[in-house]
Amino acid sequence: MSILFKNAKIIATEKDRLKVLENAYLGVDGKCIKYIGTERPRTDYDSEKDMYGKLLMPGLVNCHAHSAMNLLKGLGNDLPLMEWLHTVWPIEDRMRDEDFTSGMEMVILEMLAGGTTSFSDMYWRPIITQKCIGESGIKADLTRVMMGGSPDADYLTYPNRVEALEFFRQCDGAFEGRLHADWSVHAEYTIDEGFAAKWAEEIQTLGGRLHIHLSETKSEHEQCIAKYGVTPARWFYEKGFFNVPTYAAHCVWATEEDMDLFLEKGVTPVHNPTSNLKLGSGFAPVQRMLDKGIRVALGTDGSASNNNVNMFEEMHLASVIHNGYLNDPTLMKPETIIKMATVNGALAQGRPDTGSIEVGKKADIIALNLDAPHLVPDHDTLALVVYSAQASDVCMTMVDGKILYENGEYLTMDRERIFREYNKSMGYLF
Amino acid sequence: MSILFKNAKIIATEKDRLKVLENAYLGVDGKCIKYIGTERPRTDYDSEKDMYGKLLMPGLVNCHAHSAMNLLKGLGNDLPLMEWLHTVWPIEDRMRDEDFTSGMEMVILEMLAGGTTSFSDMYWRPIITQKCIGESGIKADLTRVMMGGSPDADYLTYPNRVEALEFFRQCDGAFEGRLHADWSVHAEYTIDEGFAAKWAEEIQTLGGRLHIHLSETKSEHEQCIAKYGVTPARWFYEKGFFNVPTYAAHCVWATEEDMDLFLEKGVTPVHNPTSNLKLGSGFAPVQRMLDKGIRVALGTDGSASNNNVNMFEEMHLASVIHNGYLNDPTLMKPETIIKMATVNGALAQGRPDTGSIEVGKKADIIALNLDAPHLVPDHDTLALVVYSAQASDVCMTMVDGKILYENGEYLTMDRERIFREYNKSMGYLF
Repeated sequence: MSILFKNAKIIATEKDRLKVLENAYLGVDGKCIKYIGTERPRTDYDSEKDMYGKLLMPGLVNCHAHSAMNLLKGLGNDLPLMEWLHTVWPIEDRMRDEDFTSGMEMVILEMLAGGTTSFSDMYWRPIITQKCIGESGIKADLTRVMMGGSPDADYLTYPNRVEALEFFRQCDGAFEGRLHADWSVHAEYTIDEGFAAKWAEEIQTLGGRLHIHLSETKSEHEQCIAKYGVTPARWFYEKGFFNVPTYAAHCVWATEEDMDLFLEKGVTPVHNPTSNLKLGSGFAPVQRMLDKGIRVALGTDGSASNNNVNMFEEMHLASVIHNGYLNDPTLMKPETIIKMATVNGALAQGRPDTGSIEVGKKADIIALNLDAPHLVPDHDTLALVVYSAQASDVCMTMVDGKILYENGEYLTMDRERIFREYNKSMGYLF
Repeated sequence: MSILFKNAKIIATEKDRLKVLENAYLGVDGKCIKYIGTERPRTDYDSEKDMYGKLLMPGLVNCHAHSAMNLLKGLGNDLPLMEWLHTVWPIEDRMRDEDFTSGMEMVILEMLAGGTTSFSDMYWRPIITQKCIGESGIKADLTRVMMGGSPDADYLTYPNRVEALEFFRQCDGAFEGRLHADWSVHAEYTIDEGFAAKWAEEIQTLGGRLHIHLSETKSEHEQCIAKYGVTPARWFYEKGFFNVPTYAAHCVWATEEDMDLFLEKGVTPVHNPTSNLKLGSGFAPVQRMLDKGIRVALGTDGSASNNNVNMFEEMHLASVIHNGYLNDPTLMKPETIIKMATVNGALAQGRPDTGSIEVGKKADIIALNLDAPHLVPDHDTLALVVYSAQASDVCMTMVDGKILYENGEYLTMDRERIFREYNKSMGYLF
């Protein structure tokens, strides 16, 4: 199958810079982008799609989510963290396989409608929920969250470890590479130190990528220093975790020295602005990280602390809050923000073959309908995407050259069935 | 004309508190709300509308905009303030009557689609643009921005003054009260002190409301103290301006003493979170104002510094940024935010007959379609509106009992003509 988009505005990438093409063509052949240009290509395509008034841009990569927590969205808003956790934990304990599936399917519906083509998820039972990745056509890095343990427990038979390894062995690279099985450590404060040392050693030999929480709140950051004498970043570094390609959610309280470790080891901090603000965690030093040359990605965190998985909202927040916090209107330019939401996330996920519109890259592409009062005038297309556009402007989402969502319709997912199952889960849990 | 909404979820107001009704009825007769309840009303209505899966809530009041600046949206993003002003001023100087009209009409299209039923605008030529208010059916408080003057100039024949008075006399209360002609002072730093004194005296005798900018940036706040020995708020207070019911945009650098003046005089600060962040102005002390019992409203500022007029974005930002800034997740609860965006704005605009869903109030009502993946589950409807909903979820906008927008269609405005005229303006200006 090949398809030629014509008359499109396109945010393409040339020599690592974003470039806007007008009235352009984009040819997709199989899974990949075959042609980009303002001249009609000479080869034929199976079908053509007129994109007049539409913008093609790379699909968004949500690098930090806890998808099935969507079932808990709206519970215990505005509570202090510990009270909130005590609200949600008893419900999480009761979640069955089908509830994890319902939650993830609903989140994938939301993601596809909002232009997300790949996401990273840290939660339970990926061996169950991975089926949703297969069926929906989206890309995802799932992980079985690793936490707990104790000096008395047996590491080798510890269920978290066993499940994570089983998931990795069975599923990594499944669905023609759309699914990655990543490793995780929930955080340094939720894992036994002995377990952590063994885990770090084990995953270094196995390869793959590591997804962690890091210095989300001031108190956890300071408690780590009090307990271990080092910051959380230094703790992970010294244990050897950063020898595995790592992306670290939050990093709100990362120090200069922590950032130097990120740079040395190629760690990608994942900025989650809505969650960090809503939960009162603070302002991650994203501008400083960018100034130092650190690659920063973007995420929504779980719907329960956001309360949605809307990457356009995250782009918007990331683009304005640091200006306000640092009293400087010149920071966080649209190009930087779009890269955070696309190619930086793709690289963190170990997907160098996507995240930008370039010939030869995978066709993970979204279209925005620009025919809307809030999207005129277009004096600056990158600014329009970041400051003015909404997730609801997405009118097409394509992954690996296959259209998964178009004009409100899902082409791979049964929206009605998913809502039905979701309501069953809600009925059981509440 | 009377209409009965049935099977609706409704955010109504009882004794100044928001209350969510399920499977409820809302009856509108003429311009007003006649019935709210979970039982079917006994009287007949001309028509009925099934609102299953939809939420009815009060229309949003955008208390600070510069609507026609929409034409300049996306120009000079990320520039320091003075460079940005030098980018936009030459273009503003060239704007013709039809350009002001185009800009405002486009903004009204955007507002109605996003659930705004009333807005306050500070810009030029309201005597021209007021026609857009008449035709569209929206409510607005327009003002001819007052600024400039000099010790040598003649106050009585000063064009700003003459135009403002003419607009007030001709248009205040037009369109059955939908249009208010408000007074303005752009800011204390853009008006001659002698002119300001005369203006303050004059508008106190004429009545009406006053729309100003106040302490938006640290530098203007400090320069006022350096020049006049008082804060901008104290300056306005001492001149007598606050004897006119006043709403003041920004108030980012308002002091404790300034807030006491707001409280004494009933001044409504208008919070513009996106603009304050994007332009690097800072974080208005909104939580402190609320704690002191000050009524705070919400606005978007002009599209050129936002870059849209999306009140759902402002609600979202207002709900999370102060938590982040003050490191406290318990602040700015959804009920507070919704009131800021509705009834508080209505009161600032001198419209005590709207802003909430109560029997006898004007039917300024919007409907949100809740049948969307990002709007499930609904554990807390007020939180859902503030944290999860999007402007694009609005499926109906009613003002004074008349539906102006429904399911993507405008019932009073000619979308095609407006886009055509807008493109003509863009062709002339750029």
